[in-house]
Amino acid sequence: MFDAAELGQRVSQREFKEREVQLRTKLLTLQYRTHELARFPVLIDFAGVEGAGKATTINMLNMWMDPRFIRTIGYQKPTRAEMARPRFWRYWRDMPPKGGIGLFLSGRYSRPLLSRVYGDIDEPEFDNRLSEIIRFENALVDDGALILKFWMHLGRTQQEERLKELEADPLRSYQVSEEDWKNHEHYDDFVAAAEHLITRTNRSAASWHIVEGGNENYRHLRVGEIIAAELSRHLEVQERKAAEDRPPTRVASPDMPKVDTVFDALDLSLSVPKSDYKKKVPAVQARLGELGRKAQAEGQSTVLVFEGPDAGGKGGAIRRTVWSLDARTYRVFQFAAPTDEERAHHYLWRFWRHLPRAGSVSVFDRSWYGRVLVERAEGFATEDEWRRAYNEINDFERQIVDHGILLLKFWMHIDKDEQLKRFKKREKSPYKHWKLTDEDWRNRELWEAYKQYGQDIIQYTSTKKAPWILVEANNKPYARLKVLQTVIDHLQEKLDGPAGRPA
Amino acid sequence: MFDAAELGQRVSQREFKEREVQLRTKLLTLQYRTHELARFPVLIDFAGVEGAGKATTINMLNMWMDPRFIRTIGYQKPTRAEMARPRFWRYWRDMPPKGGIGLFLSGRYSRPLLSRVYGDIDEPEFDNRLSEIIRFENALVDDGALILKFWMHLGRTQQEERLKELEADPLRSYQVSEEDWKNHEHYDDFVAAAEHLITRTNRSAASWHIVEGGNENYRHLRVGEIIAAELSRHLEVQERKAAEDRPPTRVASPDMPKVDTVFDALDLSLSVPKSDYKKKVPAVQARLGELGRKAQAEGQSTVLVFEGPDAGGKGGAIRRTVWSLDARTYRVFQFAAPTDEERAHHYLWRFWRHLPRAGSVSVFDRSWYGRVLVERAEGFATEDEWRRAYNEINDFERQIVDHGILLLKFWMHIDKDEQLKRFKKREKSPYKHWKLTDEDWRNRELWEAYKQYGQDIIQYTSTKKAPWILVEANNKPYARLKVLQTVIDHLQEKLDGPAGRPA
Repeated sequence: MFDAAELGQRVSQREFKEREVQLRTKLLTLQYRTHELARFPVLIDFAGVEGAGKATTINMLNMWMDPRFIRTIGYQKPTRAEMARPRFWRYWRDMPPKGGIGLFLSGRYSRPLLSRVYGDIDEPEFDNRLSEIIRFENALVDDGALILKFWMHLGRTQQEERLKELEADPLRSYQVSEEDWKNHEHYDDFVAAAEHLITRTNRSAASWHIVEGGNENYRHLRVGEIIAAELSRHLEVQERKAAEDRPPTRVASPDMPKVDTVFDALDLSLSVPKSDYKKKVPAVQARLGELGRKAQAEGQSTVLVFEGPDAGGKGGAIRRTVWSLDARTYRVFQFAAPTDEERAHHYLWRFWRHLPRAGSVSVFDRSWYGRVLVERAEGFATEDEWRRAYNEINDFERQIVDHGILLLKFWMHIDKDEQLKRFKKREKSPYKHWKLTDEDWRNRELWEAYKQYGQDIIQYTSTKKAPWILVEANNKPYARLKVLQTVIDHLQEKLDGPAGRPA
Repeated sequence: MFDAAELGQRVSQREFKEREVQLRTKLLTLQYRTHELARFPVLIDFAGVEGAGKATTINMLNMWMDPRFIRTIGYQKPTRAEMARPRFWRYWRDMPPKGGIGLFLSGRYSRPLLSRVYGDIDEPEFDNRLSEIIRFENALVDDGALILKFWMHLGRTQQEERLKELEADPLRSYQVSEEDWKNHEHYDDFVAAAEHLITRTNRSAASWHIVEGGNENYRHLRVGEIIAAELSRHLEVQERKAAEDRPPTRVASPDMPKVDTVFDALDLSLSVPKSDYKKKVPAVQARLGELGRKAQAEGQSTVLVFEGPDAGGKGGAIRRTVWSLDARTYRVFQFAAPTDEERAHHYLWRFWRHLPRAGSVSVFDRSWYGRVLVERAEGFATEDEWRRAYNEINDFERQIVDHGILLLKFWMHIDKDEQLKRFKKREKSPYKHWKLTDEDWRNRELWEAYKQYGQDIIQYTSTKKAPWILVEANNKPYARLKVLQTVIDHLQEKLDGPAGRPA
């Protein structure tokens, strides 16, 4: 695979100067067009053998292009904040906005590769890690992103010469570490693992480009020219798509035929007398408070998601749940229209941002399911977009759960009559009328559609790792106790193990 | 001062329930009005003696109000990311947006107070720290913020009893630490320092409220009722103001009489032959690269600010400066219209956000001076706003410099003819025409006004700590070398000391 990158390619200084002028003009023009279109981000990754000049080429790209729209990031060992979140959190955090370019060094490929070379993970686990990366890249590519991946190569002897040459230069000897020499000893393992990695993760719109790294002039030009060619191709496609954009039109309709859903099977008459509720709730909240403190001490994080019809009692259930927790350890997020910073990113970005730090609780009052609810109903997401969202969401939630975070998804369900009753009560209430908007009445017309969208959600996203908890919510005391008790049971199991008993 | 808060105030459970209903309705209504108006943030600070129940009252407020628009933050020892920035960075970072409420525990008053109690700082230094806080609060209050500060009080004996009571309760004993008892021993010092602190930092719109903490019911209601009263008063004023809002009208005029400015004294004929430039630049950049690596290793951060007329060569100078640095260690920020997240905050917020992490460089291509340039010219800032901005800016820069960050402010100046020449050249250039907008031509009409605004800037903000460096920029090689050399000289002095010599 790498033989073609050990040919000793060179470009003379004179040729470099000539080609550089043209290339720079081209890159800048493409960069400004990309910025202007603001329709997709560009992610450029640099990997490869030590000494192949990744960093200097990155500097050169910053010089050639307009650095105001570029973000360059080199990753190191995860920080504490990063360790508290799933592995890909930091890559989501550092995602360039649509129209921007990100240059990444020692990024998502670095750790799996080195872990494999040094035998810390076996081949199946290596493949798992690569599959994770593929899913990450797919989500971005499907959303329009351009991903370019460079493998900067040097032959074994070239590498040795290069490291020695750097060490001899007092201005650059700092670039060579002991680890580099250690890696050099593992050159063959490294190249074998790299070949496996590249084969597995190469796909159009997220393709690998192997570049011979020995000669600086050649390397700079080659990388720049590949970027120019790929970006140009991608821009044309995206500009054509932009020209075809139509304003969103509402898809959901009030006269949808009724079908049976999982919600129809719920026994909404379930209730708890108010006096019982009042008797039970202090003990339940005390228990939750205790578990909350334990979770904080042990660094156990929790994500709570609340969905369901308007006026289903999400807010009330949330308040009763967080009530017994220390206010410094939780945050409640509500998601209305995205801010323009959020709009400039993949739709999942604004949820990734809010995953809890260690030992904390993030409560989502409405969530990423907006993609397959309101965005589907209002046509903000195309059919392609919301259809693939189920998978993207499953993958997102899998990462949360696999990281050890407790994820609970509550669907607070009421029937249509109960909703009307609550809307009317809100209208009259001195403070709750703030909670009722024209939008709510408008959504109510789409009751049937939203119910069926909900059915799809339960069908596609109630997974073993992240099941939905359906809450019969016509009776508020019943619903609130069910939510509280569910959080307690799961948190207890997380903290004490399945057979655990409260201390 | 605290005698009036040692009366043993109590509220019975029945009275509490009655007043709570009314209070909650009031608080929620006020909160939604505040959210709707989205014109000012509310910052509520909780300080006071240990055991006075700050945390439980904060929890109660979260219960009473809508937690989606509240952010509760408790501060601990600064993290590494926080240490790398000036002291107030984390308070700026956590600022609630306009329309939101922030509840803060162990916030900006905590450290100065404890440092004083334990004798780590003397009284003049204590006063300095308090003055810093006053300036911070003033900037926010002037911008419309409502700041409320609660001092939760317990008498000496009350405190002792309270701590013992907590210790005896197995569910709450975790709330009492050894440090609490240690603080209790210093009760008198603590109260004396607190009295000084409160006296010094009390002002309307950022006032202290002393609340007796012994009885939970009394404490909750008292805090809630004060918030309701103050917020209601503030809202009325702000709603009145909002009704008087006019759309911005351009203030700057093309036919401003010419006056002599500091820029007229510049010798814009200064130049360096291109061949000289080419000869000199590699050595200069190599030196800067070396210093950059040293700065990174030693954690020395740098902030570079570039202002001046359009086409003054800011972009070119920035590119040549960052060129020799490792792309992972710098970021270039350009400031066009604020995003809506930025618009929801004080105008300095978006610059505070981008202060560099340890050992890094933040380059601002246009900056906070927009407040006294474009915002002044276009009427986006009122006269009051831009007039007080000079002080706010001085204070911001003082904090940067006092923290040990190297701050350099470059004003790249060209004359009107040179600008025209460059505009025309840009129009023709295959890639630079992206850089030329109608806005640029429009601003050019206001040349005289901007020159005088620049004069004001130099006059008010060229301080000893943060002087402006005027760059004669008609000749690009001259200007670029001057910028590069200035950065080198200052960085070298920072790293090696005034008498230092390059290694």
